[in-house]
Amino acid sequence: MRVERDFELYYWPLPFRGQFIRAALAFAGKSWNEHDEGEIAALMQMALEDQPVPFMGPPLLVDNETGFALSQMPAIMVYLAERLALVHGGARDRALTVKLVNDANDIIDELTLDGGRQMWTEDRWASFIPRLVKWMRIWEAVGTSNGLEAGKGFMLGTAKPDLADIVTVTLWGTTASRFGAIAAMLAQYAPATMGLVQRLRAHPALARLEARSVKRYGHAYCGGEIEKSLRAVLPAGDG
Amino acid sequence: MRVERDFELYYWPLPFRGQFIRAALAFAGKSWNEHDEGEIAALMQMALEDQPVPFMGPPLLVDNETGFALSQMPAIMVYLAERLALVHGGARDRALTVKLVNDANDIIDELTLDGGRQMWTEDRWASFIPRLVKWMRIWEAVGTSNGLEAGKGFMLGTAKPDLADIVTVTLWGTTASRFGAIAAMLAQYAPATMGLVQRLRAHPALARLEARSVKRYGHAYCGGEIEKSLRAVLPAGDG
Repeated sequence: MRVERDFELYYWPLPFRGQFIRAALAFAGKSWNEHDEGEIAALMQMALEDQPVPFMGPPLLVDNETGFALSQMPAIMVYLAERLALVHGGARDRALTVKLVNDANDIIDELTLDGGRQMWTEDRWASFIPRLVKWMRIWEAVGTSNGLEAGKGFMLGTAKPDLADIVTVTLWGTTASRFGAIAAMLAQYAPATMGLVQRLRAHPALARLEARSVKRYGHAYCGGEIEKSLRAVLPAGDG
Repeated sequence: MRVERDFELYYWPLPFRGQFIRAALAFAGKSWNEHDEGEIAALMQMALEDQPVPFMGPPLLVDNETGFALSQMPAIMVYLAERLALVHGGARDRALTVKLVNDANDIIDELTLDGGRQMWTEDRWASFIPRLVKWMRIWEAVGTSNGLEAGKGFMLGTAKPDLADIVTVTLWGTTASRFGAIAAMLAQYAPATMGLVQRLRAHPALARLEARSVKRYGHAYCGGEIEKSLRAVLPAGDG
């Protein structure tokens, strides 16, 4: 029998898109059950009207307090922001948080060439580098415009870490620790962001999540052929 | 001199992703200035710290009441939902609206093979059809689970059209009226959604927006080589 927990998460046994939701739940001290590939496949094969919410693919989250179910990572983050009180500013902070969530969603799609629509080649990676650097600099500019420094401050200028910071460590920390080349680029082009990532890695709930993730998924990030092709083009690093 | 209006919208002279924002503004009776390619290019070439908000690409919206600027279509929709009071339900309706916005964002990316990463071929389109049908059926299932019928009701079961309905007519109405094959599929696989689209096309502000869009952009949808390749594989229709 499954243990009763706060949420049910349907996501592949990988970080990638699901890790944002895991990080938000972990940060808020919530518990959840992970549902494996077999259960996801069963859910996806159900008639749409029988699904918890009609959806195309994981992640899908069920809130056990109400039974409310939701798909789409950015939508789930907006829901959790409200449900778990993870954004403490006003309309500006709520909106900028959603911008960063959608930026993150785009960045991980670009890192995987939209779910492996193509495979990475040396040439493709070389032409992508300026764009990845620009993403890092965009992130850095949002943070530093709100007073973020490597050693102090947070993405939206709050006194304590908020959802925008959880998104930051999940996006950049997870990729940097699994791909040494990304860590090196981040340190060079977004030092304040890298500093924030390092500070938040020490947050007890996020550190526990990362340890558990490495134990469960190894150094896998997005999995599949696309991860192999990404690792093949990235310079070796200690990531 | 530019006329003073409620918002400044930076988006290409095309429907595609910008049309969702235009529709939300038009529906709420707000005015906005459109900024053309030259102004978008100038904004994108600025140093990131000088941009209204550090961003990768349009759409970008500036709220003239406060000067607040935001990129990322789904984030802008979340902002406008709150700013213009376009979602009347509670946390459930807010979250489902964001799900539909992100579904729509995915669907238009898929229709354009992620911004023309590849071009459409007969084979690619043939393999995409089941997935496009599934998206239509997902949309239909969300609507009908909330009491939507062709002749009455709205996406989330509200008494009046809300942001989820504006997203619906913008996604499916805009594509259906420009691609006859999509209109035919929608009528077959999502008749309640098609009925909602037809009812909302008659909404005065949305009808004015559509007339103005056709006048300005012709029947262009996403533009570029990808639109040519899409039109080349779609069966001819009266769209």
